[in-house]
Amino acid sequence: MTTNTRDIHVTVWNEYRHERQDKDVAAIYPEGIHATLAAALRKAELTVHTATLDEPEHGLSVDVLNATDVLVWWGHMAHGEVNDEVVARVQQRVLDGMGLIVLHSGHFSKIFRTLMGTNCDLKWRESNDHERLWVTAPGHPITEGLGEYIEIEHEETYGEPFDVPPPETLVFVSWFSGGEVFRSGCCYTRGRGRIFYFRPGHETLPTYHHPEVQRVISNAVHWAAPTPGAPRTSGNAQAPGLKWSSGR
Amino acid sequence: MTTNTRDIHVTVWNEYRHERQDKDVAAIYPEGIHATLAAALRKAELTVHTATLDEPEHGLSVDVLNATDVLVWWGHMAHGEVNDEVVARVQQRVLDGMGLIVLHSGHFSKIFRTLMGTNCDLKWRESNDHERLWVTAPGHPITEGLGEYIEIEHEETYGEPFDVPPPETLVFVSWFSGGEVFRSGCCYTRGRGRIFYFRPGHETLPTYHHPEVQRVISNAVHWAAPTPGAPRTSGNAQAPGLKWSSGR
Amino acid sequence: MTTNTRDIHVTVWNEYRHERQDKDVAAIYPEGIHATLAAALRKAELTVHTATLDEPEHGLSVDVLNATDVLVWWGHMAHGEVNDEVVARVQQRVLDGMGLIVLHSGHFSKIFRTLMGTNCDLKWRESNDHERLWVTAPGHPITEGLGEYIEIEHEETYGEPFDVPPPETLVFVSWFSGGEVFRSGCCYTRGRGRIFYFRPGHETLPTYHHPEVQRVISNAVHWAAPTPGAPRTSGNAQAPGLKWSSGR
Amino acid sequence: MTTNTRDIHVTVWNEYRHERQDKDVAAIYPEGIHATLAAALRKAELTVHTATLDEPEHGLSVDVLNATDVLVWWGHMAHGEVNDEVVARVQQRVLDGMGLIVLHSGHFSKIFRTLMGTNCDLKWRESNDHERLWVTAPGHPITEGLGEYIEIEHEETYGEPFDVPPPETLVFVSWFSGGEVFRSGCCYTRGRGRIFYFRPGHETLPTYHHPEVQRVISNAVHWAAPTPGAPRTSGNAQAPGLKWSSGR
Repeated sequence: MTTNTRDIHVTVWNEYRHERQDKDVAAIYPEGIHATLAAALRKAELTVHTATLDEPEHGLSVDVLNATDVLVWWGHMAHGEVNDEVVARVQQRVLDGMGLIVLHSGHFSKIFRTLMGTNCDLKWRESNDHERLWVTAPGHPITEGLGEYIEIEHEETYGEPFDVPPPETLVFVSWFSGGEVFRSGCCYTRGRGRIFYFRPGHETLPTYHHPEVQRVISNAVHWAAPTPGAPRTSGNAQAPGLKWSSGR
Repeated sequence: MTTNTRDIHVTVWNEYRHERQDKDVAAIYPEGIHATLAAALRKAELTVHTATLDEPEHGLSVDVLNATDVLVWWGHMAHGEVNDEVVARVQQRVLDGMGLIVLHSGHFSKIFRTLMGTNCDLKWRESNDHERLWVTAPGHPITEGLGEYIEIEHEETYGEPFDVPPPETLVFVSWFSGGEVFRSGCCYTRGRGRIFYFRPGHETLPTYHHPEVQRVISNAVHWAAPTPGAPRTSGNAQAPGLKWSSGR
Repeated sequence: MTTNTRDIHVTVWNEYRHERQDKDVAAIYPEGIHATLAAALRKAELTVHTATLDEPEHGLSVDVLNATDVLVWWGHMAHGEVNDEVVARVQQRVLDGMGLIVLHSGHFSKIFRTLMGTNCDLKWRESNDHERLWVTAPGHPITEGLGEYIEIEHEETYGEPFDVPPPETLVFVSWFSGGEVFRSGCCYTRGRGRIFYFRPGHETLPTYHHPEVQRVISNAVHWAAPTPGAPRTSGNAQAPGLKWSSGR
Repeated sequence: MTTNTRDIHVTVWNEYRHERQDKDVAAIYPEGIHATLAAALRKAELTVHTATLDEPEHGLSVDVLNATDVLVWWGHMAHGEVNDEVVARVQQRVLDGMGLIVLHSGHFSKIFRTLMGTNCDLKWRESNDHERLWVTAPGHPITEGLGEYIEIEHEETYGEPFDVPPPETLVFVSWFSGGEVFRSGCCYTRGRGRIFYFRPGHETLPTYHHPEVQRVISNAVHWAAPTPGAPRTSGNAQAPGLKWSSGR
């Protein structure tokens, strides 16, 4: 009998501007998208902390990041206000093993673009299409507890081509009633870190109250949490030598 | 100025049963799907040969295969009648560098299942949905000459999950009006050979007369044609030795 | 605090011929390679069962396979004696989610070749080279507890090109003192199942007594154990329909 | 008979500092590494232009880049002096389809790190090891004209782990006499552009006079040259609409 007991520390980062500037958004997420996500993740027995753009260092001090196993990122209207030093700090933590879950319009965040190396552009339309996210990797741990697809009654539409590196694993492909498809669940490894991009979550719609959307995010946190693999070393190195006398 | 002159020999293989048994299919492909495809590929300045199930050795003798750069495969109702020895012969030729384009219901052919190692199963429905194939790899040579997507007025619907190994490159994702998505253009390498699976082409519909569908198939032939890379050797091998006196 | 308690059932399959026919092999693995591996895996708190070629159905009845989460496979001199029906049964269990760890000369087993779709050929030499397996994916769970590399004093040499599909993740690359390299740790998914090929383990050498080799195999068992992802369905399917009234 | 006539424009970019500051390097590359590479590529019937760090805009004006199909990059001691605006310009051209070949210590260039999103770190040692680059993708066009491996009598040693995203195709793995291995030929796509990292080429050694090293670079230029695939569009988009009357 194997028992793995593991306490995963999650930091949910939210830009937290729409909710304070727009009544319609505030009606859906009165305490912010981060609060809704944090509550959902706490129900999944994760240890959750939140951070927002307007806190000092955007709430992402060295100490906070060092104590974070997985960072969840939502941003949209203020990507440009995120400090480049903080972006570099987050990038380094990902390369060192911290997981990163990038949500919806976070595709255009500095941190995601930095880690992908591409523009991360796409097509979009706010027409309240129906969205259906089909599972394309049925055995993948991020799909645990789901059926064949997730349905969302109304969502912003995203369309291909999505300008990202080819995902290492493609977990979801979305169908939109208006005629588009989108690679909605994309896994990457960068350095020792695991990254998951998950498409849904327009601020004017109640998507993050959807139980299956919440389930995907908590599954993704478990998937992205660091595992204690072999060390990474670099720089000038002596020849390793053979520990045996070379009597060949 | 670089000039590459290259004569690519294509063999289009067709089961050729539906066309002889079903008037409706014959009305669309009077000389068989292979004839329609061959004519299209000849217009693309390829050297084309055809072969069908009911010929001796299914038209795929050792000599024919050795003279084939790229094999195009359409089959559906008689997959089980394809001789295992011929399947093994085709597999070996692919591993040795011959390209293979598998069309539509060929997903369930012995040769495709053998090369994939999976069941290659999927969902399907004959409801004359609209299909839109979105390009997800815009710079890929298989997409040359296309716009952002290909539209087909009526097609058989295929749905995920498609039980294949994760494609090395995903070129198209289909949207169907009935609510499904499908990874419709999938690239693989096996041994020295390149394989492309391309979804459209139900026998009761005029899909292979569609100019953009024809264009994808001819592009794919060019992509899959063997390139003279380094040799593959195997078996018991002496230590390669260093050609320098080892004065270390 | 998250607690995952999980009881993983492993079946270690061994051809078990060399050990009974060759005194030198028997001196190293007196009860068979399977017994040595089983003892190591039991120390890692896994539930372990063994099976060998000469048992009825090679010890791989439907019931045994259904009760197996991860199958470990070692074979060499008698690949051809493995019954094709059993191979098909194992393949289907992998596609349904059972993990598979293929060791050393198992690269030429029917089950590995069937799942890969290629010849799985390579170069080899029995010259007691030194082997050093470098970790190329430092954060990967299969590398947990390792340093930068594993050293094995004497091993059979394998050399590239290894005729397998491109691995989805490349975990180890071996250096051999005679001048070869080899992709020694290769991850694949096929259907819902995860597959890991791990190179070391020549029967005339005590490789499976090496603690780090044992560690990799037990790590790989944990990595390959099935996770309860979304279901896979296939076949003829009605249009899923939208659960909302379509008021667009 | 298909005739593809194609004129590929290559720009070879070189930092060009070592050659002007160090007599030993100048003895090997009297007119600079770029001149040696340019001469080799011209023999392969490519149209070649050169550019160096100390030219205005590092020789990489908008006009030069727009006229470049494939950019070859060598840099080492002055990565930090490359202007960020030029880096952004090169990145955008790659995403728009320009090929990029990054050589040796260029792994640490701003442009490569920007496109990879990782630190691109590695181990290194200047001990004049022997290097043998094994082909791991025998049918790949970058290996055309090679044998099973390339041997270089003396080279700087690089060792794993190489902190890059998993290559989409791994073409070469190096063996070093001192005991290391390295993923020496790595293919990526980013946006519409193709990128190839190729390891050899220490400035104090005559590696770029080696005919097979030259051959790999000219093969890579052909592989990376842009192909006119489907367009990439993005931004706010109307629903594409169906061109058929929707009579369902």
